[in-house]
This record gives sequence, C-alpha cells and structure tokens, in this order.
Amino acid sequence: MNETIEVALGERSYPILIGTDLIGDPACYSPYIAGAQVLIVTNETVAPLYLERVRQALAGRRIETVVLPDGEQYKTLDVVGRVFDSLLAQRFARDCTLIALGGGVVGDMAGFAAACYQRGVSFIQVPTTLLAQVDSSVGGKTGVNHPLGKNMIGAFHQPRAVIADTATLDTLPDRELSAGLAEVIKYGLIRDAGFFAWLEAEMAALRAREPTALAAAIARSCRCKAEIVAADEREAGQRALLNLGHTFGHAIETGAGYGRWLHGEAVGAGMCLAADLSRRLGWLTSTDLAHACALIAAAGLPVAPPGDIATERFLELMAVDKKVQSGQLRLVLLKAIGEATITADFDPAALRATLDEGQPR
Amino acid sequence: MNETIEVALGERSYPILIGTDLIGDPACYSPYIAGAQVLIVTNETVAPLYLERVRQALAGRRIETVVLPDGEQYKTLDVVGRVFDSLLAQRFARDCTLIALGGGVVGDMAGFAAACYQRGVSFIQVPTTLLAQVDSSVGGKTGVNHPLGKNMIGAFHQPRAVIADTATLDTLPDRELSAGLAEVIKYGLIRDAGFFAWLEAEMAALRAREPTALAAAIARSCRCKAEIVAADEREAGQRALLNLGHTFGHAIETGAGYGRWLHGEAVGAGMCLAADLSRRLGWLTSTDLAHACALIAAAGLPVAPPGDIATERFLELMAVDKKVQSGQLRLVLLKAIGEATITADFDPAALRATLDEGQPR
Repeated sequence: MNETIEVALGERSYPILIGTDLIGDPACYSPYIAGAQVLIVTNETVAPLYLERVRQALAGRRIETVVLPDGEQYKTLDVVGRVFDSLLAQRFARDCTLIALGGGVVGDMAGFAAACYQRGVSFIQVPTTLLAQVDSSVGGKTGVNHPLGKNMIGAFHQPRAVIADTATLDTLPDRELSAGLAEVIKYGLIRDAGFFAWLEAEMAALRAREPTALAAAIARSCRCKAEIVAADEREAGQRALLNLGHTFGHAIETGAGYGRWLHGEAVGAGMCLAADLSRRLGWLTSTDLAHACALIAAAGLPVAPPGDIATERFLELMAVDKKVQSGQLRLVLLKAIGEATITADFDPAALRATLDEGQPR
Repeated sequence: MNETIEVALGERSYPILIGTDLIGDPACYSPYIAGAQVLIVTNETVAPLYLERVRQALAGRRIETVVLPDGEQYKTLDVVGRVFDSLLAQRFARDCTLIALGGGVVGDMAGFAAACYQRGVSFIQVPTTLLAQVDSSVGGKTGVNHPLGKNMIGAFHQPRAVIADTATLDTLPDRELSAGLAEVIKYGLIRDAGFFAWLEAEMAALRAREPTALAAAIARSCRCKAEIVAADEREAGQRALLNLGHTFGHAIETGAGYGRWLHGEAVGAGMCLAADLSRRLGWLTSTDLAHACALIAAAGLPVAPPGDIATERFLELMAVDKKVQSGQLRLVLLKAIGEATITADFDPAALRATLDEGQPR
C-alpha cells in the first residue's frame, strides 16, 4: 500500500513517501541525510508518542532534539530562536540535517530554521497530522507568524524528503483530523471535481479513519499539491489557488487569537465564505454552494466564522494578506466545483455582504 | 567617471552603479522599484547625513523609515524584528521595496528582512561605507549574528541594484576607511596580483581619499566580486575564497565581543594569520608574507589579533565557522600573492603555532 509521489523541481526534486509504519524505518531516512549531525525538532505532544522511534531509525548519527511547546501561538520568531540556539550550542555544521517531526507548526518552524541556519541546511519533513501530510509539509513554504499577520516572515526552502506515515494519524484527535480534511476538500474544490464527488461518498469512512480511504485521500491530495508546486514553485501564478479560503481563514485565526481556532477549521469556514462570495458574484450556483458547505460540515468543520469579528475588523485583517498587490486585495474564488480563479475584480459590496451575513448558508 | 558593473545571475542579474552624487538622483532608483511602498532601513549615524537626500530622490512614493542603532552588536534577530514590525504596521505588501542605506550591518539586516518578509520582497543596497561598497552590498549574502557565531542566521537574497556613491565616503571616519581597505586588499591577495601591486603604489592616495584612486579601487573590487558571485552564487566552490582571513576574523570579532573590533580590522589581522599559516606550510615565501602584512599595516589595520584570546578559545571560536565540513575546519590559505585555496589539509600544529605566536610578523 506504500506509495511514492515525486515533487519535480529539478535539482530540488524530492519524494513524498506515503504508507504505514515508515517513521521507524531507517531506509526511509538514509538516502536523504548527508552528514552525521541530525537535529530533530518536535513538540511536547508528539515527542512522547514518536520521538524514540525516530531516534532509533536514525541510530549511528549524532542526534540532538529540540522539543517546542505545542500550538500555533508558539509559531514565532522567538521560538525559532531556540532551534538556532541548539544548533549553535551543539556546533552543528552546514552539512547537518533537521528533521521536522510533528504537525504544520513544527514543520513550518523547523523548515524556516533550516532555511536560515548558515543560509540553508537540509531538512526532512515527518508530518504526523493529516493537515501536514496533505498540505503544509509539501512545497517548501516555511515561516512564522507575526502578531499582525500569519506566515508573514518566512522562506521558500524545499525538504529533501517528506515521510508521511499514515499510522501516526491513529493518535490524532478528531478535531485535528477534521482540520486536515479541510485541505483535502480544498483540492477537490479548486481543481478536481471527481475527487470532490469521491469525498462526498467517502467522508464517513474518512472520519472513521478507514486506512484505505485515508491513504487514498492523502495520496490524491499530495499528487494535486506536487503538480501545482512543480508548475509554480514560488507562487507566481496558479500556486496561489491553493490559498482558497485562506485569506478569510487567516483573518479568522488572527482575529480569534492564535490557538483558538485550528488552521484547518478557519480554512473550512473561509472556504464557505469564498464560496458564498462566488455565488453572490454569479459564478457559483446555489446548489454548488450548498454542496461545498455540506461537505465541509460533514467533515466536522465550522461553516461560518466566529460571531465576534466585526466586518470592519475582518476587512482590516484581510488587508495584510500576502496576495495584496498595489493596495488591492486579491481573493481565490470559485467558478465551479473543481475550478478556481484568483482575482481582484469583485464588488467590494458583495464581500461586505458575505462578511455581514456571517452565516454563509 | 560613473561606471556600471553587472552581476550576471540570469533573471537575478543586477547592476552596481558606482560614481559621485548618485544617492540623490531619482534615475538611479526608479528602474528598480516596482510598487509604491518603500521602506528605508538606516541607522542613527547615517540618517542625519543622507536620509533626507534619499527620501527626496524617492518622492512620489509612500516612504517609511526604520532607524536602527549603529553597530555590529545590534546585528541580531531581535533588531531585525523591528523591521518586520514596521512593515506589518504599515501593511506593506509583497510588491514593496526595502532600501538599505548604510554600512554592512544595515545592508545585511535590511537584506535579511527583505529575504524573509512575505518570503521575499525586493531590496536595493545603498552602501555608505567603503567596506559595504566593495564587499558586503554585492552578492546577496544577508543575515544576522548569534551570540555563538557571526552571520550564522541568514539567507541568500540578491538586491535589485547596488548604488555605490563614492561621495558618501567623505563622511567616513578614518578607522572605517581602513576597515574597508582590508576587503580591497583581499581581492589582490586571492586573485589579482596586479591589483595588489597597484594597491602598494596607491595606498597613500587611497588613505588621503583621492577620488580617482578610490573610484578605481572600488570598481576593480566590485568587478572581482561580481565575477566570483556570477560563477558561484551560493558558495559551492570558489566563492569561499572571498573568506580569506574571515574564519580568523570572525573568531576575533566574537572573542573580542561584537563592536570592539570592526569587521575589516578583524579581517586585516585574520589575513595576516592566514598568510602566516600559509608560510609555515611552505606555500608562501617569507617575502610575500612580509609584503602582505606590510600592505595591511599601511592601510592602517592591525596585523595581529588582540592579546587576550587564548589559543584554545580561538580554536573553539573557529570551530563554529560555516566552512566546517564533517567536523573538519577548512581554511582559505594563500599559495602566492594573487592565488588562494580552500583546504582542510593543513597541520593542526602549524595552526596552533600561528595562534600561539599571536604576532604573525
């Protein structure tokens, strides 16, 4: 059942290994580690579950560990500083390797540390959440949050390999499983109507964690992401479509305070808002809007933002988005289920109406 | 007398403009600024001298300013955080431009902020010290120091243009002029014996700030650096030769405490140590060693490290160098004046003897 998907980026190409019980297998790591020094970056939640198994798979090397606090609110420049402190205290050289063992927050921070340490060292992603396995570990986006905006400080830095062990999802709380499903649904919405239909049929199986369904969803998601990243590594064009629901979502995360909403939850509600705006602009039918929101709800995700972010504040938070160009907010919107577009050409009154309504359905 | 030197890096190519009274000329900036938002990053010393002139040259845009404290001891992740704070407080978008107005410290920090803000925005180097004009503003190395090592956190991020206005050197203290000459001499030592001989003849004119001599030294230095960077942007090979004296120098800077020795002063003494070790290994003649140290002294630079760094401590500080590979220290050493090599193949006893002697001549 193991599968390998290649992210084709010339000399920066790398494989995504998908399967069960990979994290304890030395053969999954060896081809991607050049030097003898390895730093595992993980967090308090994941360390007791998987750290020892990864350490054993890496035996024979000089292994150091940094255990970070768990949560999006710790994804800061200050906390990344601890990784630098450890690398320097241990005198790690340019040929060292960082291993990100955990969810998206760990992957983003360890990846950013790898991007900046000595102007760039190797790293391997070992995602242990569904969200990280289908999205954040693939594609080389790394970075941290700033009190005034999400992911505002970062770098493009591709990993040497992604090791997605589906067995690690057994320990994932239901709420985080749902958060990961938001990004899975996203691929269906932006480029793969067939996948969207498959997800409608399989959502119950996915939430029941049926291994075959999960592995299939992960592989199809990674194939989508790998194709998009290979075509547009630095987000000059179509890669931006991966941000469906994210401009709304980032505003929700920042507005609610980091840590209150999971990223995937905010993206779930954000995709409903994007779909609602798309319908107001006459691009999406009411039926398609209903289908999109129903699947998001079926995944156990919120379909509306928290009630306590006023429209003005919401617009303010959206204005710091990275897709703003020359002062103009650009949004990823839907033309149909399976077809997305990025545009600044929408009626601001329609956006306000979407935000005012709050409950997009 | 104005001259333009191209750094040939494909789609990342850019010009180095060298001449007098460039910083107040709008035409020097316009071709390299796409958006309307410009953040000038400078320091307390340079701002009163040149900030207003640069602001006027950029008129018509939305200009913000961050004034940092002056000195290598402020080249930290924390201080770069102030640049991010300003960018986000002003809601600067991905199409903004940063302008580094100052010496090497300002250039390294503003460049690093540009590399990381929204995963990379444009920046222009406006170096106002000799050291920055001949070395640090060219080639895309950006970053900050860590208490345990110099330039350990950073990124490769090329500027859109370098504007080297030789008139700004009029306000440069003598000590900083000498520090810049260290990097000028470096180019002679590593790859250009003819330039080295020219410097021996012209050193008095350079220290007297004769404009023609200075402009010639800057242009020849930039041409050397541009050629090396074009051939090896990310320091996989020959670019490392630019670090002649720097492994010793960084140890001196860290050992003495940031801010006590200027970078160029430490490099001056470091090049004497590298030359001394090269002689001990039988690669450099005593005459060439004497010539090298004499020129460094003639530039007003120290030829020996501070007396208070014991050899053991010195070796420990050198061990965190970025050129360490698989635990082995590699050094840039001289085969002759005008010819350098990078090697781990030297007798550690000879290195100890060089450090023990302290006074290499």
